[in-house]
Amino acid sequence: MRLFRMQALIERIRKDGVVLDGTILKVGSFLNQQIDIGLYNDMGREFARIFAGTPVTRILTIEASGIGIACVTAQYFNVPVVFAKKSKSANVSGELLSAQVPSFTHKNVNTVIVPREFLPAGESVLIIDDFLAHGSALDGLISIVRSAGASVAGVGIAIEKGFQGGGDRLRSEGVRVESLAIVDSMDPERGIAFRN
Amino acid sequence: MRLFRMQALIERIRKDGVVLDGTILKVGSFLNQQIDIGLYNDMGREFARIFAGTPVTRILTIEASGIGIACVTAQYFNVPVVFAKKSKSANVSGELLSAQVPSFTHKNVNTVIVPREFLPAGESVLIIDDFLAHGSALDGLISIVRSAGASVAGVGIAIEKGFQGGGDRLRSEGVRVESLAIVDSMDPERGIAFRN
Repeated sequence: MRLFRMQALIERIRKDGVVLDGTILKVGSFLNQQIDIGLYNDMGREFARIFAGTPVTRILTIEASGIGIACVTAQYFNVPVVFAKKSKSANVSGELLSAQVPSFTHKNVNTVIVPREFLPAGESVLIIDDFLAHGSALDGLISIVRSAGASVAGVGIAIEKGFQGGGDRLRSEGVRVESLAIVDSMDPERGIAFRN
Repeated sequence: MRLFRMQALIERIRKDGVVLDGTILKVGSFLNQQIDIGLYNDMGREFARIFAGTPVTRILTIEASGIGIACVTAQYFNVPVVFAKKSKSANVSGELLSAQVPSFTHKNVNTVIVPREFLPAGESVLIIDDFLAHGSALDGLISIVRSAGASVAGVGIAIEKGFQGGGDRLRSEGVRVESLAIVDSMDPERGIAFRN
C-alpha cells in the first residue's frame, strides 16, 4: 500500500504539538482551535493531490474541528461540504440520517446527524476530519454515507493516532484512509514517533 | 452610515432560504450545514473588500457554523483563525477567557471559552459568524476580546436578522457590524424583506 505523508505537518507537530499523556496530543495552537490558515491551505492542496483521479462529488465532515479543514479542502475539489451535527437543533428538520458515535475526547456518546437531503444517493463522498483515533466518528460517518445510498471515495485525515488502531482497522475493512501524519507512539518525555 | 450588501447572498437566500416561522430562517442547504464553497469564497472576498484598510491580525468565530466562513475568509486576510468552544473538553488546558452566551437556537446557556494564549493582548480582531440575531453570541465574543486586552476591528456577519435588534444595538454601542444581508422581516407566506 502506498502511503502519503505531509512532511510540513509532521514537522509542525514536532515543533508545536504538546503530548499531554500517552493518548492526548494537543495541536490547538495551529490545527484547532487556533488555526494556521496557510497550513490548512497546504493540507487542502495535499488532499487534492492524494485523491486526484478519485471521483469526489461531496465532502463530509463532523462538527466542530473538521469543518475548517473540510471547507478549505473543498475549494480544491470544487464540491459542496456537508457536516454532521452532534445534536438535533431547532433549525434541522426533515428526514435525518444518523449514527451513534462514542466520543473519545468528551467521554460520552453523541447522535450524529445529517439531513438526507444533503447527502443524495449516488454521491461519491470524501470524508475529511482532523483526527483519527479509534475510528468511531468515522464509523458513524461511513455508516451515514452508506445508508444514504452514497459511496465513500476515501477518508482524508490530518493526524492519525496510529497506536489507537482505528485507521488500520478501517484500511483492513477496505476503506481508503489517507492520513497526512500518523503518530505511532507518543510520550510526554520521549516525544512523538511518526510512521514512515 | 455606509452599509455594505452582498447581492448574490441576498438572491441566494430568496431562492433557497426557507422561513419556518417568524424567527427561524433555514439556510442549511447552502450556508450551513450543506455549504456552497463558491459562495463562501465570494463572502470571504467581500469581507476582505469591506474591511480593507482596517488592521486585522486575527479572526475570531464560534463553533460550529462560523468556523467554515471564518477559515475561508481568513485566506483573504492571511491571519490565524481562533474559534470559541462551547464547552470545556479534555484537550483544552491553561488559562481560559470565557463568557456566558444564551443560545437562541438551542434555548440554553453555553459557557464559551477561548484559551488566553490564542488571543494575545494588542491583537486587532475581526469577528466572523454566520448569523446575528439578538447578538448574545457577539456580546460574549466581544467581551472575550476585550478581556484579552485586544480590540475589536469589526464584526462580519453573513445574515443579520435585523428585526431581532442585535446588530443595531451593537452599532449604537460603537461596534462596526457589517452584515452581507440584513433581514428586516420574514414570514412563511409573505416571504423575506431585506434592508436596503
